[in-house]
Amino acid sequence: MVLTNSRDPYASSFNLSDYLQERRRQVEVALDQALPVIYPETIYEAMRYSLMAGGKRLRPILCLATCELAGGTIEMAMPTACALEMVHTMSLIHDDLPAMDNDDYRRGRLTNHKVYGDGVAILAGDALLTYAFEYIACHTRGVPAERILAVVSDLGKAVGAAGLVGGQYVDLASEGDPDISLDTLDFIHTHKTAALLGVSVTSGAILAGASDTDIEHLSRYAQRIGLAFQIVDDVLDITATAEELGKSVGKDLRAKKATYPSFWGIEESRQQAQRLVNEAKAELQNFGELRQPLEAIANYITTRTY
Amino acid sequence: MVLTNSRDPYASSFNLSDYLQERRRQVEVALDQALPVIYPETIYEAMRYSLMAGGKRLRPILCLATCELAGGTIEMAMPTACALEMVHTMSLIHDDLPAMDNDDYRRGRLTNHKVYGDGVAILAGDALLTYAFEYIACHTRGVPAERILAVVSDLGKAVGAAGLVGGQYVDLASEGDPDISLDTLDFIHTHKTAALLGVSVTSGAILAGASDTDIEHLSRYAQRIGLAFQIVDDVLDITATAEELGKSVGKDLRAKKATYPSFWGIEESRQQAQRLVNEAKAELQNFGELRQPLEAIANYITTRTY
Repeated sequence: MVLTNSRDPYASSFNLSDYLQERRRQVEVALDQALPVIYPETIYEAMRYSLMAGGKRLRPILCLATCELAGGTIEMAMPTACALEMVHTMSLIHDDLPAMDNDDYRRGRLTNHKVYGDGVAILAGDALLTYAFEYIACHTRGVPAERILAVVSDLGKAVGAAGLVGGQYVDLASEGDPDISLDTLDFIHTHKTAALLGVSVTSGAILAGASDTDIEHLSRYAQRIGLAFQIVDDVLDITATAEELGKSVGKDLRAKKATYPSFWGIEESRQQAQRLVNEAKAELQNFGELRQPLEAIANYITTRTY
Repeated sequence: MVLTNSRDPYASSFNLSDYLQERRRQVEVALDQALPVIYPETIYEAMRYSLMAGGKRLRPILCLATCELAGGTIEMAMPTACALEMVHTMSLIHDDLPAMDNDDYRRGRLTNHKVYGDGVAILAGDALLTYAFEYIACHTRGVPAERILAVVSDLGKAVGAAGLVGGQYVDLASEGDPDISLDTLDFIHTHKTAALLGVSVTSGAILAGASDTDIEHLSRYAQRIGLAFQIVDDVLDITATAEELGKSVGKDLRAKKATYPSFWGIEESRQQAQRLVNEAKAELQNFGELRQPLEAIANYITTRTY
């Protein structure tokens, strides 16, 4: 399913860069307010060190966008948006630990455990993961409790052994094995990356009370941009500069890690990503003007350089 | 507030040992069913290794007991009961890691990371923590969604930086410092131990729709047995044998760790624990016959030898 040039009448009026900048600003303010520093300060500071370290805030922005798309408000989705970033941050903190990927830098800064030590980094991740669920349950306003529970449940599925953590485990178990199958590589990325992106997209719509059909379309959109995002990530690890990425490049090659380019080469990988992005956009065709951010984000995935 | 001998007419008819054995059996069956092993098997096996390693199942049993006390059923509370044990198990797995307490044995068996490695142990803990919230949200039946959300929220508060994890952090930061204040020691234990016991007690009552007044009484009961439990733990670390405890003894002394006996001595510690248990039981006086398990559990805390 490929979307041909649709000559969208709204396309010219939508500025993704301005949109992302404004939404990112709103998310930063909400995250900052969500996590004040109290006694014992160090654990909160460690949580904030990684949570407030910038980043694209793509997951919260997707959640806010689909809530608006389905007729809801920014306010209804903001606690869930913050929770998604808390969970994402937890996964980065734990993934960077010496017992896992053993990374010293992240987003151009020292990783959490390099600043606070391994023990505090483990606890800061645990606290962020816990706070994510608490924050949705405790702070979501103007949404029926059944929908909030559905979001808690879906977030759990996306993050636990059947989702992100399961993907991290297979990634860890495959370390140093360049001979893993394409199926295994797909498993890693559909779980480690696409599952959380998926619930980022669907949770906003669920909070707004979207129909099951709409949620299915959005779920397929999310799966496709999630995988495309990872393919592009693998390509950029080879083609981008360290300055652009804010982290080490060529790391996958040095670690003899299987990547999409190692199966398909760079050019075919780019084409596969583009095909997925086109399929993702096709899922949006029955939504109205408010689909623009999701379309533009899909386009951005294949054109980004960091 | 001290409860004098109340000559409880029901006391003679209640057999705590039989009660605990039956409840523990029910909890074991529910936990076993909650966590089947699927691909990728190792992460589920690591989760089950620690989750199914026995233990008193005190937290789930307290939750089931207060749900019945407040007019609810075992079935209403069982998903939350399982979740409490998942969270407790997560805290043990992460606490045993080399970056934290560095323990090789737990409940007489090798700790999780000694069997599966540090990376898998971190992920197994993350997965159990996540699954706890998902399991409550997804599997609780016959309870209004608002109450389930309240339990998710309360569990989050009890486990995160404002609860268990905050207590673990202060414990970690105080390691090797025998000069911490009694206030700091209280902070560690009210957060590391009593907070989760607190939500174990209150969540069952919340699910059953108990009044705020009843929940307050149960909350005070829980705080007191939580602290008493820790004081007795500290005493047993000095007085019990390794065989009785199923773990190393004298560890606190060797680690120069501040404990209640190091402030009060063993005899005064025992008296403080007894005073707390009496206060805890006084909070139950307006409940009916179904308070028996809670009373007996409070009594058991000061008489246990392991």
